[in-house]
Amino acid sequence: MGALRLPSLTSLSSAAAAAAPRYHFYRQLCLPLRSVSAAKFSVQSSTVEKEIAATPPELEPTSQKPRLQPEKDRVITPRSQDFNAWYLDIIANAELADYGPVRGTMVIRPYGYAIWEAIQDYLNVKFKETGHSNMYFPQFIPYSFIEKEASHVEGFSPELALVTVGGGKELEEKLVVRPTSETIVNHMFTQWIHSYRDLPLMINQWANVTRWEMRTKPFVRTLEFLWQEGHTAHASPEEAEKEALQMIDVYTKFAYEQAAIPVVVGRKSKVETFAGASKTYTIEAMMGDRKALQAGTSHNLGQNFSRAFGTQFMDENGERQHVWQTSWAISTRFIGGIIMTHGDDAGLMLPPNLAPIQVIVVPIWKKADDKAGVLDAASSVKETLQAAGIRVKCDDAEQRTPGWKFNFWEMKGVPLRIEIGPRDVSNRSVVVCRRDIPGKQGKVFGISMESPTLVAYVKGKLDEVQSSLLESAKSFRDGNISDVSSYSELREAIAQGKWARGPWSASDDEELKVKEETGATIRCFPFEQPEGAKKCLMTGNPAEEVAIFAKSY
Amino acid sequence: MGALRLPSLTSLSSAAAAAAPRYHFYRQLCLPLRSVSAAKFSVQSSTVEKEIAATPPELEPTSQKPRLQPEKDRVITPRSQDFNAWYLDIIANAELADYGPVRGTMVIRPYGYAIWEAIQDYLNVKFKETGHSNMYFPQFIPYSFIEKEASHVEGFSPELALVTVGGGKELEEKLVVRPTSETIVNHMFTQWIHSYRDLPLMINQWANVTRWEMRTKPFVRTLEFLWQEGHTAHASPEEAEKEALQMIDVYTKFAYEQAAIPVVVGRKSKVETFAGASKTYTIEAMMGDRKALQAGTSHNLGQNFSRAFGTQFMDENGERQHVWQTSWAISTRFIGGIIMTHGDDAGLMLPPNLAPIQVIVVPIWKKADDKAGVLDAASSVKETLQAAGIRVKCDDAEQRTPGWKFNFWEMKGVPLRIEIGPRDVSNRSVVVCRRDIPGKQGKVFGISMESPTLVAYVKGKLDEVQSSLLESAKSFRDGNISDVSSYSELREAIAQGKWARGPWSASDDEELKVKEETGATIRCFPFEQPEGAKKCLMTGNPAEEVAIFAKSY
Repeated sequence: MGALRLPSLTSLSSAAAAAAPRYHFYRQLCLPLRSVSAAKFSVQSSTVEKEIAATPPELEPTSQKPRLQPEKDRVITPRSQDFNAWYLDIIANAELADYGPVRGTMVIRPYGYAIWEAIQDYLNVKFKETGHSNMYFPQFIPYSFIEKEASHVEGFSPELALVTVGGGKELEEKLVVRPTSETIVNHMFTQWIHSYRDLPLMINQWANVTRWEMRTKPFVRTLEFLWQEGHTAHASPEEAEKEALQMIDVYTKFAYEQAAIPVVVGRKSKVETFAGASKTYTIEAMMGDRKALQAGTSHNLGQNFSRAFGTQFMDENGERQHVWQTSWAISTRFIGGIIMTHGDDAGLMLPPNLAPIQVIVVPIWKKADDKAGVLDAASSVKETLQAAGIRVKCDDAEQRTPGWKFNFWEMKGVPLRIEIGPRDVSNRSVVVCRRDIPGKQGKVFGISMESPTLVAYVKGKLDEVQSSLLESAKSFRDGNISDVSSYSELREAIAQGKWARGPWSASDDEELKVKEETGATIRCFPFEQPEGAKKCLMTGNPAEEVAIFAKSY
Repeated sequence: MGALRLPSLTSLSSAAAAAAPRYHFYRQLCLPLRSVSAAKFSVQSSTVEKEIAATPPELEPTSQKPRLQPEKDRVITPRSQDFNAWYLDIIANAELADYGPVRGTMVIRPYGYAIWEAIQDYLNVKFKETGHSNMYFPQFIPYSFIEKEASHVEGFSPELALVTVGGGKELEEKLVVRPTSETIVNHMFTQWIHSYRDLPLMINQWANVTRWEMRTKPFVRTLEFLWQEGHTAHASPEEAEKEALQMIDVYTKFAYEQAAIPVVVGRKSKVETFAGASKTYTIEAMMGDRKALQAGTSHNLGQNFSRAFGTQFMDENGERQHVWQTSWAISTRFIGGIIMTHGDDAGLMLPPNLAPIQVIVVPIWKKADDKAGVLDAASSVKETLQAAGIRVKCDDAEQRTPGWKFNFWEMKGVPLRIEIGPRDVSNRSVVVCRRDIPGKQGKVFGISMESPTLVAYVKGKLDEVQSSLLESAKSFRDGNISDVSSYSELREAIAQGKWARGPWSASDDEELKVKEETGATIRCFPFEQPEGAKKCLMTGNPAEEVAIFAKSY
């Protein structure tokens, strides 16, 4: 295998990290907080070590994994020091994911999967509201299907996983494990669509997809990932265009309102358009290292697939026409985007709308006499919030200090913490602390623990955290986009790690030259365009639009 | 390929069916009822016919499919005449599923998928209530993993699909597309579990699985299917046993209360136990043709996989022990079980708790003057029911007659129909008709269309239909189980198409002999056992339990 090997989650830069300040967790191994941390990184048993010694190269080198062991301190590399190591440390420590045994595959652990479920819950409602039905297509696609649409096969054939043996026999035609489903969807649409009355046909599926990627990174790019893929067929190009725009709008609202990620929405350049699409719309997010992440796309497929698959309908005049199509997708990659947008040196920071746990209640006592009262109050606060539909957990484990718990739940990105001590119990009040504002600034004392007041206060605070995350991300983004009017300005902006925004009407070749020379690509021609006449930053010719260039994941 | 070919959905027994009474749909092709019937079976376009002519043998022979075409009448073969043709006709006509292009694969269409979503919604809540978290494991499993547990490899190796090429290169180790995940789960559990404090570890995943089956049938047995698979690890055999029993109980309640299927719950014989399990518990359902369907299983895996994968924990005394495990699953096969339990000659009959549409409202008018009033009333009745959380649809398509609509929605299995005509409008009342009681017996006139009365009435009726489906299925089941005390009685019962229940303590070989000679297998040793001394029906030796023998899917 010539495949590049993914560095193991925590094997990077341990020397450098050792010299830097560290955030400590796991002072001692006691009763774990079972619902979220029952499974952890680990010492390998000797049996398993033997197993690893015999591991073929295709397998992940698990023996490198446990830099950090649960019985000792856990650290998160500071973000400023090594963004990639920080990212992998968060994934490991917050138990979002782990490597699968096959190179480039990922196990999504309960805490990470709960974020995906929150994404699904929101999008599923929006997809149904906009007239789409869920269904399921088989994942095995005859190889010949992939070859039917010329640019599609060119784009996807280097990344295919092929099933060649089934039930002990060599297959006559090898099967592709779906990298995306346009081909099989069109094969079926061709059988289901006859007349204009069958249109629009609007469906979605939640599924796993496989792309044999060489450079992988948990959530951001994995050999197998989870996504939803919408597929629609329409009677006119206008309807297809409207649908493609409608769905990128659903994604944009989701990013802003749920994930607190201020994406830039726009159109891809021809070079960056999806293999088989006429137009690709995209939402591009700026990560904490200022690289761009393509976080969702919506394609106007035109008649490319319908012509390749003969997907026709009889129009109102009795004439046969090819349908006009769209497809659109968001994947588990989005979770990577959330981590890299909001996280800080203390760990994950989750937007309240998607956080599996929105509020962590930490009871605090020293004297045995106080214990029962504090625990009672904590448990009743938890019940109160739960009854109001807030996702809340009470951490009453006795083997951890309050300080350890504060660090731990901050690292897990829980938006609000409620502290309850003996004095709070006698005052019938609690202390509320925000994850996004560290220390005393984020702490408010004396909030009543009675139901209507507390619930209203907590809901209000969750909304505040949600908006505040969006605002910080927005000002970070805006502070890191440079308007450029020449190639040298573009180069400088990119060299500084920023996004460069400037007028562009140059050729595909010149776009590729920029990529070669600076590492940046056109992320999109944003929908939001400055007014007035523009000159191409590269050629000086008139340009109709500005483009955004950036390095990306 | 030596694979047996799946007969196409509607290609069976057309000659026989032609001689029998038929239920007619699609009198004329007009505006379709888009949300549920936008995509239909079809005339093949000439492009596609060419495609099919060149189809390699691995592909489904789609050219045989459209026995029935949407522009003409659709028929459902009577159930009594040909159960299999009836089943396939329902799947095609109710648009539950279609064949995928690869032999034995299935496309789950929106109406079928909505049933699966209802199943998921219910079970997901129960799994979380019983302490399980959802997560996701990669579907590619190194081949060597499958070989580690001896009986597991023996059971699964004939059914594996293998990926041998990735990213254009031959892989050094071939990858199994998961047929089930015990091996990869144990590989990960071994890394996550260290001490008794990490136990129990209780997870579930919703996923697709692949088994290279030779004889396939939509929903019941397909090359790829959807399921959930729960996996747990415990510190003691007692806990594992308790968990395995708890989960078969969750399935049993689901079958009775949601699907209205009176399953028999029990333990599998050694011969029929899951490959790799110590004990398998099962729920067995009697289909309309009296064959048994294994509808869900829960396995006590003992230490079989933990020993094979070295999944150990340090117990409270500081000693290393192998964990005790369970796994349990329900799949899209269950949808096949619902069809074959409740359906009748008119089509599908869905239990209200799982029906995507619980109530269909059909406005009826002849004179143009009446139209507006009737449509208004229908739409307001729909709103009223929807606001009360009832899944309701109003079929106001003008191009279909009321009679056509009655047949169509009966065929789709909608539990209740509400008819509203001009007279009902003036009386402010509606007519409510039950799917499960045909004709006048199932019709009640003069139900007030005002909100509290109507909602209460409809909810009550839905509950009645739900119980009534369960009761009919129960009496059908009980009328078709024969108590037998000798092998000849067993043979006779099986020959009559019944289930045979009798004391059994004979050998595995004798069990296999029964299978060879009668086609019946032990479905289970039911939990519900008759009291008193028993003698094995085969050997006359003392027996502790009765077993149920039946032919099965």
